[in-house]
Amino acid sequence: MTLSITESRSQAVEMRIDGPRLWDSLMALARVGATEKGGVCRLALTDLDRQGRDLVIRWGREAGLAITVDRIGNVFMRRSGRNNALPPVVAGSHIDTQPTGGKFDGNYGVLAGLEVVRTLNDRGIVTEAPLEVAIWTNEEGSRFVPVMMGSGVFAGAFSLETAYAARDTQGKSVREELESIGYAGPEEPGQHPIAAYFEAHIEQGPVLEAAGKTIGVVTGVLGLRWYDCTVTGMEAHAGPTPMPGRKDALQVALGLMRKVVEVALARAPHGRGTVGAVEVFPNSRNVIPGRVKFSVDLRHPETGGLDAMEQELRAALAEAARNSGLRIELELVSQFKPCMFDSDCVGKVERAARDLGYSLMPAVSGAGHDAVHVARVAPAGMIFIPCKDGISHNEIEDARPEHLEAGCNVLLHAMLARAGLAE
Amino acid sequence: MTLSITESRSQAVEMRIDGPRLWDSLMALARVGATEKGGVCRLALTDLDRQGRDLVIRWGREAGLAITVDRIGNVFMRRSGRNNALPPVVAGSHIDTQPTGGKFDGNYGVLAGLEVVRTLNDRGIVTEAPLEVAIWTNEEGSRFVPVMMGSGVFAGAFSLETAYAARDTQGKSVREELESIGYAGPEEPGQHPIAAYFEAHIEQGPVLEAAGKTIGVVTGVLGLRWYDCTVTGMEAHAGPTPMPGRKDALQVALGLMRKVVEVALARAPHGRGTVGAVEVFPNSRNVIPGRVKFSVDLRHPETGGLDAMEQELRAALAEAARNSGLRIELELVSQFKPCMFDSDCVGKVERAARDLGYSLMPAVSGAGHDAVHVARVAPAGMIFIPCKDGISHNEIEDARPEHLEAGCNVLLHAMLARAGLAE
Repeated sequence: MTLSITESRSQAVEMRIDGPRLWDSLMALARVGATEKGGVCRLALTDLDRQGRDLVIRWGREAGLAITVDRIGNVFMRRSGRNNALPPVVAGSHIDTQPTGGKFDGNYGVLAGLEVVRTLNDRGIVTEAPLEVAIWTNEEGSRFVPVMMGSGVFAGAFSLETAYAARDTQGKSVREELESIGYAGPEEPGQHPIAAYFEAHIEQGPVLEAAGKTIGVVTGVLGLRWYDCTVTGMEAHAGPTPMPGRKDALQVALGLMRKVVEVALARAPHGRGTVGAVEVFPNSRNVIPGRVKFSVDLRHPETGGLDAMEQELRAALAEAARNSGLRIELELVSQFKPCMFDSDCVGKVERAARDLGYSLMPAVSGAGHDAVHVARVAPAGMIFIPCKDGISHNEIEDARPEHLEAGCNVLLHAMLARAGLAE
Repeated sequence: MTLSITESRSQAVEMRIDGPRLWDSLMALARVGATEKGGVCRLALTDLDRQGRDLVIRWGREAGLAITVDRIGNVFMRRSGRNNALPPVVAGSHIDTQPTGGKFDGNYGVLAGLEVVRTLNDRGIVTEAPLEVAIWTNEEGSRFVPVMMGSGVFAGAFSLETAYAARDTQGKSVREELESIGYAGPEEPGQHPIAAYFEAHIEQGPVLEAAGKTIGVVTGVLGLRWYDCTVTGMEAHAGPTPMPGRKDALQVALGLMRKVVEVALARAPHGRGTVGAVEVFPNSRNVIPGRVKFSVDLRHPETGGLDAMEQELRAALAEAARNSGLRIELELVSQFKPCMFDSDCVGKVERAARDLGYSLMPAVSGAGHDAVHVARVAPAGMIFIPCKDGISHNEIEDARPEHLEAGCNVLLHAMLARAGLAE
């Protein structure tokens, strides 16, 4: 079937993906590593990961896509365009999950890309630039750190050697496990030009649902700084030790854990401050805590905002140390810079959502995604859809079929707008 | 050697215990289960406990004492008086230790009693009532709960069956282990009248040392209530979840953990409030805590004080639950009523300390002791001496020879005053 360019354009504008087919694919992939509670446990580079990859690649081949795999196991499934000298427009995400993960996180971005291809195939539509669907290796980082490993190596955020050397708790390395499941490909990571990258994803937060919007046009991703804060006092018996003169590390830490939230509250709506993990030593009912270590997670869309939050927190630490006489240490353990997505990619997502008549709002991603790494080497954008109660990384993660379908339609039209129709 | 009553009285007033002998006995007993860091690990009903008991009993026999053992393994070493129809005046404590215990906690009270007997033997002094030295089984509760087990069964605080059924983490029961070390005696616990009970003990707190006093005349023991407080929110991803609307269990718990200390600070000097243990779920760096459980330890010398502290805490919990919408539960997990020691016993300790010329101050014990249980069935009192930096339940626990000697002299004269000299 070959259409005239006018027919093609008019048909393209009216084109919609097949929602039930997308849903069926999501449910079929979710059976690989399905958990009793309705979630998915498909950790990176396990045999279940291999089974999931094999299934998606079989679907890709059935859709006529050409498969390449790079040395960190990233998979690219290519649909030719009219001009195959052009770099491809890529849709992608990951299919590894958390130990108690859901059906949609990552999987949606990959299968939405596949559904775009299937839809174009159904209509016999040829794009000017080729299209690709990417599966990035080990985004979750549950088994191997760093997280977002495949896209990170691809974008040069860290080396292939660093990634290969990572080991799980059993002592198995990424290199061994990639080879074991047959996904250590020949292509050099990053030697794969990308014209533009789009990633559809559940929001993993409550904002879209609360606002009653279908599409989040993601303009960027919050920068992140992770710290460990340690307060050192002196343990003592809770009974015989009078209140004055105690060196209770927990009581000093309380105020600092509160401050982490305060510095974020002062920077609404995009500042974030969280204390997620706390360790108390010796953690005994009748012993005054001698040491408390707690995590600090600060996020903000701008580097200056992160700097200011850190500064306020450090000032509070110094004051608490002066007032209490206790030792207080703050150690930076990890960070990601804020990421602003390419304005043309963001614009194409917004335009597609508007043209399709979906309710939409600008969104900033609070979580990291493969798109953050890809944005270092190619124009990139993201499409968010609501998820139930904002819950993700949980077996009860859920999303509505009509939202999944809408996001995929936006992906289709953003990709088409960027790749162009064959003249 | 038999003295006339006048000679005896005059000699008794001048009598002092043998400090170096007491010290040597303490050091000899501390070699049983000695740790590399200078402490002692002699858990209740282990073979080391047996060795420690065997050693003290051998010393007792060498001092002419008659030994009886009851069904929970409490040991009584008896020195006859002139009138053996009278109930004995008893000195005692325990010789089991914490896993990282010191040389003095408990051991001092037992060996001070033995030193009193040795001193009387040296002088050929006969008391009117008999004297006894008691070793109570499993005071520490490190291996088997309830703590203060032997004195608790003796005083009827809980049944012998309850104590027998307690198991350690290996699944071994108190009954099995008592039999295994040969200390399941024939005497029915509690079928052993006591005229008065005195327990010499290191303070395990910093008050005496800070005040520069040698003797603490213990008037009572703080009542204690242990609770578990659980705050249940909703876990969510720290990145995508905006600050407003979070159900962060930790941030709500912070204010309550502070309140535990505030209710105690408002009741100086004897009110105590401690949060010693905290568990955060899921305790992950980038997850807003969905649940926090923390321990509450409240102490006060009066039941009314404990009631008021609990009431204020409950009011704060209710207010926090209303303000946050989170579920907050407070569960009482254990308690001891405040204990006021017998005024005559307390008076005899104070009189002895004054007559001996030691600096002294009234003291309230913040920690539980066997004397608390014994006080349910007999007049009781305690003698505190300073310990270095107030540290106990630690291998670096330390006490000065002159303080150990002073406390033992007070014990001697308090016991003599209570038992009377043979006419």
